[in-house]
Amino acid sequence: MRTVRLLIAFQGTRYDGWQSQRTGRTLQELFEKHLTQILKGKTDLVSSSRTDSGVHARGLVAHFRTKAKLPDGKVKTALNFYLPADALVLAAKTVSPRFHARFDARSKTYEYLIWNHRTRPTYDLAPYCLWHSGALSVEKMRRASSPLVGKHDFSAFRDSGEEDRNPVRCIQAIQIRKVGPKLSIRVRGDGFLRHMVRVLVGTLLEAGRGKLSIQSIESILASKDRKKAGPTAKAHGLTLLKVQY
Amino acid sequence: MRTVRLLIAFQGTRYDGWQSQRTGRTLQELFEKHLTQILKGKTDLVSSSRTDSGVHARGLVAHFRTKAKLPDGKVKTALNFYLPADALVLAAKTVSPRFHARFDARSKTYEYLIWNHRTRPTYDLAPYCLWHSGALSVEKMRRASSPLVGKHDFSAFRDSGEEDRNPVRCIQAIQIRKVGPKLSIRVRGDGFLRHMVRVLVGTLLEAGRGKLSIQSIESILASKDRKKAGPTAKAHGLTLLKVQY
Repeated sequence: MRTVRLLIAFQGTRYDGWQSQRTGRTLQELFEKHLTQILKGKTDLVSSSRTDSGVHARGLVAHFRTKAKLPDGKVKTALNFYLPADALVLAAKTVSPRFHARFDARSKTYEYLIWNHRTRPTYDLAPYCLWHSGALSVEKMRRASSPLVGKHDFSAFRDSGEEDRNPVRCIQAIQIRKVGPKLSIRVRGDGFLRHMVRVLVGTLLEAGRGKLSIQSIESILASKDRKKAGPTAKAHGLTLLKVQY
Repeated sequence: MRTVRLLIAFQGTRYDGWQSQRTGRTLQELFEKHLTQILKGKTDLVSSSRTDSGVHARGLVAHFRTKAKLPDGKVKTALNFYLPADALVLAAKTVSPRFHARFDARSKTYEYLIWNHRTRPTYDLAPYCLWHSGALSVEKMRRASSPLVGKHDFSAFRDSGEEDRNPVRCIQAIQIRKVGPKLSIRVRGDGFLRHMVRVLVGTLLEAGRGKLSIQSIESILASKDRKKAGPTAKAHGLTLLKVQY
């Protein structure tokens, strides 16, 4: 029995997320189907993250355990041969049998892209950017993001349906950069609640439009009330960039 | 009556090219349908280029004539409102009534992208890159491209079905650059025969694989025989970047 770690990229557009309660088109099912076929035995994948429906990944990490003797390089090549163009294995590597893709993850970096221009984005960016045509102040967004960095109870910044998990998370960094009309918000943290990055972005967008002050952000955090924060930004702007171990 | 010039971008994947003999999904039909609707009268578009099925554009130019009073800005906004995510008007501008998108074009620049890596391209590049996993010598491709620059009879480098047009064209520049696994071939010329850029690229790929020398390229040109040149490279790697007037 060996443990193999996969580095995975996918465009989330056509999928119901990594893992869904609904029976549907999930990425986990897609990868497990092909792994099971290639390794000639049922194979379960454990992922670092359960990305929402429509969210993309450039560096999701997952692991599986197998008795199959197929070398790592062949696992990668065979998977990529069968996977559709919107899903890809970037690396496959046998690791310590104690490795766990979810429990061992020390931090995760997500990027949210906004196309801030009067004209909507061209075809190559449209699937990955939220289009926001109105004025946005990057400076106000940066200022609003600063109280969010650190260890906080993020109850106000999560899916209102999720109330059983511990809401305390630590955000290590928020970087906001604008190059031409392309505005990138990178958030690195030890872990994220359901919809958390998207609610953070929805709230920072309100700050960028001049509708929220730093004080408001602080009082939203303190309120622990989802209704006080901004709307959940659309899924298609979000990409899981990297998982650190 | 005024003449309006449009700057257009589209992803060619879902379309049968700009203009097709077949009745099908063409970009010309798509744009004319929405223009006719917006301007409330049948509107014909004349394009700088008839891109092949599957070829993309970032700067195709087209013009139409209309009696409608709708300002240029509104023409652009209204078209972009109705067009699907894979087609976009970047600019609309009233120009001299003598402007002609095809006849006035002085040169056109196409880019062909090749993903030269053992692993196939990620989802964001896959629709726009030809995947070539084997070794390619950029230096050999550059050397092979030099005899192609200038004014030549390009009979050997065109669709074998197209034999009635004058085969003499002038290529002003061929630039070959590689950044990481991404290899870009840019070709600027006063005009191109049907499939010409794709046959040029197919032939340069053979040179990059060490299968053709500069002498061979010169003798292919001189032969005027399509069978001597390389295969027609797949359409999805090609993008019309710019039309100069």
